[in-house]
Amino acid sequence: MNTLISLAAVATVSTCLSTSLYAQSPQTALSLMPWPKEVTLQPGFVPVTSAFSIAVSGSGADDARVVHAIPRLLARITRQTGIPIPPAAPPTANHALLSIIVAEPAHSGPQKLGDNERYALTVADNRIQLAADTPLGVLRGIETLLQLIQETPTTPGTAPGFSIPNVVIHDEPRFPWRGLSFDVSRHFMPVPVVKRTIDGLAAVKLNVLHWHLSDDEGFRVESKKFPKLQELGSDGMYYTQDEIREVIAYAADRGIRVEPEFDIPGHSSSFLAAYPELGTGSGPFHVAHEHQPEPDFAMDPTKESTYEFLDSFIAEMTALFPDEYFHVGGDEVSPKRWLANPQIHAFMEEHKMANGAALQAYFSKRVIELVIKHGKHPVGWDEVLNPDLPKTAVVQSWRGQQSLWKAAKEGYQGILSAGLYLDLSYPASYHYAIDPLKAPASPNGGPVGKGPAPGTPADLTPEQAKLILGAEGTMWEELASVEMIDARLWPRLAAMAERFWSPESTTDVASMYRRLETTSEWLEWLGLNHKSNPELMRQRLAGPYPVRPLDVLASLVEPTKGYSRHAERYGIYSVLNRLEFAIPSESDTARRFRNDVDEYLAAPKDQRSSVHLRERMAAWAHAVKELRPMLENESILTENLPLADAVAKLCAVGQEALTYLDGPNAAPADWRKQANVTIKPIVNQRFGDLLIQIGPGIQQLVDAAGR
Amino acid sequence: MNTLISLAAVATVSTCLSTSLYAQSPQTALSLMPWPKEVTLQPGFVPVTSAFSIAVSGSGADDARVVHAIPRLLARITRQTGIPIPPAAPPTANHALLSIIVAEPAHSGPQKLGDNERYALTVADNRIQLAADTPLGVLRGIETLLQLIQETPTTPGTAPGFSIPNVVIHDEPRFPWRGLSFDVSRHFMPVPVVKRTIDGLAAVKLNVLHWHLSDDEGFRVESKKFPKLQELGSDGMYYTQDEIREVIAYAADRGIRVEPEFDIPGHSSSFLAAYPELGTGSGPFHVAHEHQPEPDFAMDPTKESTYEFLDSFIAEMTALFPDEYFHVGGDEVSPKRWLANPQIHAFMEEHKMANGAALQAYFSKRVIELVIKHGKHPVGWDEVLNPDLPKTAVVQSWRGQQSLWKAAKEGYQGILSAGLYLDLSYPASYHYAIDPLKAPASPNGGPVGKGPAPGTPADLTPEQAKLILGAEGTMWEELASVEMIDARLWPRLAAMAERFWSPESTTDVASMYRRLETTSEWLEWLGLNHKSNPELMRQRLAGPYPVRPLDVLASLVEPTKGYSRHAERYGIYSVLNRLEFAIPSESDTARRFRNDVDEYLAAPKDQRSSVHLRERMAAWAHAVKELRPMLENESILTENLPLADAVAKLCAVGQEALTYLDGPNAAPADWRKQANVTIKPIVNQRFGDLLIQIGPGIQQLVDAAGR
Repeated sequence: MNTLISLAAVATVSTCLSTSLYAQSPQTALSLMPWPKEVTLQPGFVPVTSAFSIAVSGSGADDARVVHAIPRLLARITRQTGIPIPPAAPPTANHALLSIIVAEPAHSGPQKLGDNERYALTVADNRIQLAADTPLGVLRGIETLLQLIQETPTTPGTAPGFSIPNVVIHDEPRFPWRGLSFDVSRHFMPVPVVKRTIDGLAAVKLNVLHWHLSDDEGFRVESKKFPKLQELGSDGMYYTQDEIREVIAYAADRGIRVEPEFDIPGHSSSFLAAYPELGTGSGPFHVAHEHQPEPDFAMDPTKESTYEFLDSFIAEMTALFPDEYFHVGGDEVSPKRWLANPQIHAFMEEHKMANGAALQAYFSKRVIELVIKHGKHPVGWDEVLNPDLPKTAVVQSWRGQQSLWKAAKEGYQGILSAGLYLDLSYPASYHYAIDPLKAPASPNGGPVGKGPAPGTPADLTPEQAKLILGAEGTMWEELASVEMIDARLWPRLAAMAERFWSPESTTDVASMYRRLETTSEWLEWLGLNHKSNPELMRQRLAGPYPVRPLDVLASLVEPTKGYSRHAERYGIYSVLNRLEFAIPSESDTARRFRNDVDEYLAAPKDQRSSVHLRERMAAWAHAVKELRPMLENESILTENLPLADAVAKLCAVGQEALTYLDGPNAAPADWRKQANVTIKPIVNQRFGDLLIQIGPGIQQLVDAAGR
Repeated sequence: MNTLISLAAVATVSTCLSTSLYAQSPQTALSLMPWPKEVTLQPGFVPVTSAFSIAVSGSGADDARVVHAIPRLLARITRQTGIPIPPAAPPTANHALLSIIVAEPAHSGPQKLGDNERYALTVADNRIQLAADTPLGVLRGIETLLQLIQETPTTPGTAPGFSIPNVVIHDEPRFPWRGLSFDVSRHFMPVPVVKRTIDGLAAVKLNVLHWHLSDDEGFRVESKKFPKLQELGSDGMYYTQDEIREVIAYAADRGIRVEPEFDIPGHSSSFLAAYPELGTGSGPFHVAHEHQPEPDFAMDPTKESTYEFLDSFIAEMTALFPDEYFHVGGDEVSPKRWLANPQIHAFMEEHKMANGAALQAYFSKRVIELVIKHGKHPVGWDEVLNPDLPKTAVVQSWRGQQSLWKAAKEGYQGILSAGLYLDLSYPASYHYAIDPLKAPASPNGGPVGKGPAPGTPADLTPEQAKLILGAEGTMWEELASVEMIDARLWPRLAAMAERFWSPESTTDVASMYRRLETTSEWLEWLGLNHKSNPELMRQRLAGPYPVRPLDVLASLVEPTKGYSRHAERYGIYSVLNRLEFAIPSESDTARRFRNDVDEYLAAPKDQRSSVHLRERMAAWAHAVKELRPMLENESILTENLPLADAVAKLCAVGQEALTYLDGPNAAPADWRKQANVTIKPIVNQRFGDLLIQIGPGIQQLVDAAGR
């Protein structure tokens, strides 16, 4: 039995997977993420034991990244299995369990965009072979190998333990630029957080950490030339240059490029607080500690001294960051202060600039010239696109695919971030559908604005399509603190990573969610705490009460979506400890409930069973009842009393609906109307900053029962 | 209302606590551990906000330990509450929320045994005052302050958040030596594990890390004079001298002394593997990687070269470790090889030594002279006690209180470790009852051997009693690996810490367990993972199945007790990933069930309710049913099928018993007999290395129902 799992053959194969391999015994279901280009599963497996040994050969074997990866691999096998691997004499390729063959040495200098990441992995005949053209390919293959380790299925005559199934994998990425845009200005993220985030990126084969290092709320890098940037432009929380180098080396070791961003001329209050002479007008300028409804601080693009400062600043920072790309922001510049300033106004008239956009184009041109002068490729957000932009620049689109495709048609390289904002709490399935080369759907499922229907392929020539370099998940951190940043990134970022790496045809949402749940678990083994830290946060909220019923309530709700939570009340020192911060962005429980309701309703009436739906709703109702003393007495939780009441009502109505659906008699004529009077104020309604995500499933039951 | 909670007034007060304060609203129940000498709770509280400010005064204010403690305190408040505390201008004592007054500067040099640890904490009128004689007292008071922070009770007109109840506390320790003996030879524990263990020790006011650095299985310190010790005496896992200094500094900052132990002349295979000339006979000697039923390697006490080596070695190590005390082991020396060696035999005859003990006494005397020569107080296990032992030596007793009291009567200082072996998986209540100044009970509740009845006070004069310096929880690590060491130490070590710190009268077990549960939770906030890591280990065992039913089963069982698990099959590279390693040493669920059964049976029949007992047994039965496919298919778990069946049987019999107990009719005549046929092979029986701890509660129900 050979099961060919080439996902190149589109949804047919994916569907086939979910009904054959995936739906079989859990032991044979691989949980690889991102799904490789070609996977052929074969019977049998190789046991993982304390005698695990590795031999590395090929002309790239001495590459530091490969050398460092070996002990890390062994340590991770131990963590994933509990099996200690004692130090052993280096094996030869002949008797090593794992042979790694690295065909080519890496080019000199730091990792470049487009470096070969291909690898082949063969597990057969009690041996494992990982072959790659480059050290980078080895790193990617190691991550796949680690994902293959599973507990051995119980089989007579086979020792209990862990093993790796026999498999042949050929893999390479779809896009060369696969990143996370990581804001550390709104909430500073200390080095250990950045490092564990890099571990996560590497585990799901992302290859760019786009580090958003300055914004209105803080400047986060030590500048030796302009020390006031960190002294006055931050609250003392910034990375020293040594720490920057340490993070870059850590990332490089894991095959991740680090692209810095300093956002100018807008989003630059932290620059102006340090060096007011850069600003429009005389200030006073200050770092934004509170929410700014309309931030309008910006650099003055008309002064030559601004460019002298930036020349010197960019010289320092391009020397600190070895990556070829250097991001200069350029988004959301308010022209208000520019236009209100007589001097700037005069400059614009003199240079025949019709509006703020023209002035920004002038600024962009000057800054981009500086970036190029210092040997880097400039990157900017959509707004930097203008006829003067040199073709070496890269446009990162927060506006959407249309904007990206337009740039590509004009010959510009581009990266997509629209639809990939992790901070907005949309589900993984929404982000999973965002493809840089297809028209997107809106979060609510419809087309975006007047664009083409969702899924319509980009109208680009193959040459133009190649200019679309990839995409970045984007994490803005107004509402994320150190203790729950992991829960905002993971596991949804892994689903995005699959979109950026795997073949275009890898689109089976059910398979994605099944594998995402496993991925989420082993990301915790890697040191991420997206599951465990929210648990601790809920424990904190529960005080002396048993936390379990609160965990149950938490499993049914999600934070409200989009920008609805960015209210005036949040600043960088706001307290983010309420229930909405102590939950994942997406509820697995609610998703499963929705699927089970669909399945229940789709089945012929004589084959339906409502037992599990009933049991779950009963357990939820029980939990919110148990929860009441905690909610009444623990002050931070008390705001959730209406939420708990609403869950109880939903469960009661849901049980009624099932009674009618299961029973011989239809619901009375006005039952549905009455039920809707109860649940309409609940389903899709906000409770503070929370949504009850089992609501839609119960609404479906009501609609079906009352038909 | 002033609630005076002086626990100086013995069990009466404790009992009063458990029925008044502790049993009231959870909000007023303080979860301090160890319980302070005097606690007076008053109405009202001080809110904890982002404006938390600290002023330090007094002539000890500049002590490095105090200076370093302040940012740590703020960071921990943030971790415990989620409230960010932005940097602020240093407040003056006049308007700071927390005033710390340190009366005296510390003496110069490292922390000494007996250094003053007293403090007073007053929370009143929206201010907090922490006053201590010394910097050490400040550290202890800070831990109490952190334990006082709780979620504010919901009160109209009061903002939701966290607060500190108004309280006056006067506190100081009962014993000056309160430690953990920490074996890092059998399983090496890397620096981060040692550091987080130190965090835990400091949090429960322990003050000694007794670091067991060498044993048969490995020598764990870099020696510059004798580098073969780490090169041949370990498998490459050892602390560099820089790391040792780093750990000592880390511990010193937290008020913890670090006492090294190098165990000689027995338990010394790692010495002999490196320097065979130290050994008895010609070897070959090797580090013990596998279990040794009767390890009999020992140094040769008859060669002068042995003492020349030890002189030089002790010189190096006493310089590395600044503590005044230096532990030279001395336990469990097998004379077998000595007596079989003609040369040694001749030496013994020449020196009129009747037996191995006499030869060991000679060795001890020589070694202790060396320790004293290098400026340290020697410490050794029971066996070093002999008439030649100088009075500056300290005897650490693994044999028992009698041994300790005997030493005290002879004028020796002593430390208790008997009854405090964390590796043997006894419950916290057992260890909590172990008092260095009272006769112990055996783990099964009876007296130990022919000793006096449990609880009998030591027959020592006050002067002799003062020689009992304190006690150490003892963790031998044959069966502990990095991933579950925390679960073997915590939370039980916190209960021991209370015994060592709190007044002798603090003995209420129910109160201890209530506070221990809270303590266990906030130890996770501190970075210990005694709860979260076993969860991950169970997740690993569960493979692709939902882990929850396995967690339920895990909550009902405990590892077998005592030395019953130290079988031949364990060596330092054994795989410790089975269920018995993925659970706490003590089951909270089983303990609560036992208590609830007691309460149910003690109540008059018309006031009994079995609802909760029934619900729980139904949930357990349901979980083990759900669990079956996981146990059948995941190979490492398959051995637990009989365990799961046994739980199902116990629950079924328990439900039957409750039916008879609740109902009007007694059980049929032979019911009890039949029930016992079912459960006797289960209750108190081993399932592999596990015990089902709900068994005794169900046995009680059966006994009562069949009466």
